[in-house]
Amino acid sequence: MLNPLFARLGVDAVLVPVHATPERLAEVVRGLQAIGNLDGLLITVPHKIKARAFADDLSPSVEISGSTNAMRREPDGRWFAENFDGTGFVEGLRSQGRSPHRKRVSLVGAGGAGGAIAAAVLQAGAEHLSVCDHDGRRLDALVSRLAQRWPGRVTGTATPELEAVDIAVNATALGLRADDPLPFAPAALPRGTVVADVIMKPRETPLLRVAAALGHHPHHGSHMLTQQLGLYQEFFRLNG
Amino acid sequence: MLNPLFARLGVDAVLVPVHATPERLAEVVRGLQAIGNLDGLLITVPHKIKARAFADDLSPSVEISGSTNAMRREPDGRWFAENFDGTGFVEGLRSQGRSPHRKRVSLVGAGGAGGAIAAAVLQAGAEHLSVCDHDGRRLDALVSRLAQRWPGRVTGTATPELEAVDIAVNATALGLRADDPLPFAPAALPRGTVVADVIMKPRETPLLRVAAALGHHPHHGSHMLTQQLGLYQEFFRLNG
Repeated sequence: MLNPLFARLGVDAVLVPVHATPERLAEVVRGLQAIGNLDGLLITVPHKIKARAFADDLSPSVEISGSTNAMRREPDGRWFAENFDGTGFVEGLRSQGRSPHRKRVSLVGAGGAGGAIAAAVLQAGAEHLSVCDHDGRRLDALVSRLAQRWPGRVTGTATPELEAVDIAVNATALGLRADDPLPFAPAALPRGTVVADVIMKPRETPLLRVAAALGHHPHHGSHMLTQQLGLYQEFFRLNG
Repeated sequence: MLNPLFARLGVDAVLVPVHATPERLAEVVRGLQAIGNLDGLLITVPHKIKARAFADDLSPSVEISGSTNAMRREPDGRWFAENFDGTGFVEGLRSQGRSPHRKRVSLVGAGGAGGAIAAAVLQAGAEHLSVCDHDGRRLDALVSRLAQRWPGRVTGTATPELEAVDIAVNATALGLRADDPLPFAPAALPRGTVVADVIMKPRETPLLRVAAALGHHPHHGSHMLTQQLGLYQEFFRLNG
């Protein structure tokens, strides 16, 4: 999406895919940062957590989620890390008239994407957030960082909260493969819950199909990405 | 020229300009080489000499000239360095019906481009090559590497050889700026000498203008570059 945006805006820049193995990530990123005419980096799976180490300054979202997917070179040469998974997700909800403001949100998955989404929905004014993850240590660490900033509004649970919920979010990788189990049981949710998935391929995950059949409101992974474009444009100062 | 070539050939690749200061060259090149989907590098001024240090294997042209302007990743992961300044220059002469085969060539400038051109014209069968450079140490080193491979066909001189000459070549930077002195005196050359310049901007250097006015055959710097395209295509295996 970014190269067509550059063309439309008349920005003399190109986004190029760069493959890095975890073993060579430091070498690749440090090398890219040494390039004089490189203004920014987008980071994706599986490097979103490690990439933080190559930034000089972290946004609050990166500090809380521990995950970064965008870095820019500041005028003074320092590298600033931001995370748009969470804000992109919230903007995606808003674009469909489903703002999390004053809503009860249940989130499954406390990894990089989950952490960013958790911080963003609380920042956006969610009344309460339940986070569930099979990795208890990872879950506790995230919940304690969130609770420090938004006390009384966040709970960690061993099983997904499915009762007092307006918006239920899958932020795990379950659904990427056709034979994955569902990340949580949509049948247990109150009728009319917004059921959101972060998975983009396939567009119709089993979770979203089951949710739709049950009368819930499916919310596709792609909303999170399309809403990130405007955020990137602002972050990389592409307007002038 | 390469991006339109990729498009024409249906090659899924892009050439991107990368700025590196001499101080950060190693960091940049090592970082680029650590990228999984980077197949090659083109190197230009002022890094052509230093870049050799980042190759595992050198072509004969790189070994003799000490200069490289192209590197590719081999199937086994090693980096192979080549130099196309010389072969591009010879192909450019041939494209204009001015092959150096059995000709007497006078070359001014024993730097990276000069060294590559020297090796290429000898390889192409020049009868004799005179090389001149103001830096005696650099000149002696180049001439001794050339003489080792092509004994009896090369001479180093303190002033440009201008008498027994069929082709006279400027491989110095003189002519880039409008007020540069001429690299050698075309008036002293036999009438009808091919006078070649490696400088591409401006297209009509003072040397070429004076040579044309004297009835010599000016040979533009651009020939060296346009003929390199086919060589790159082969080097980077862009046909299959």
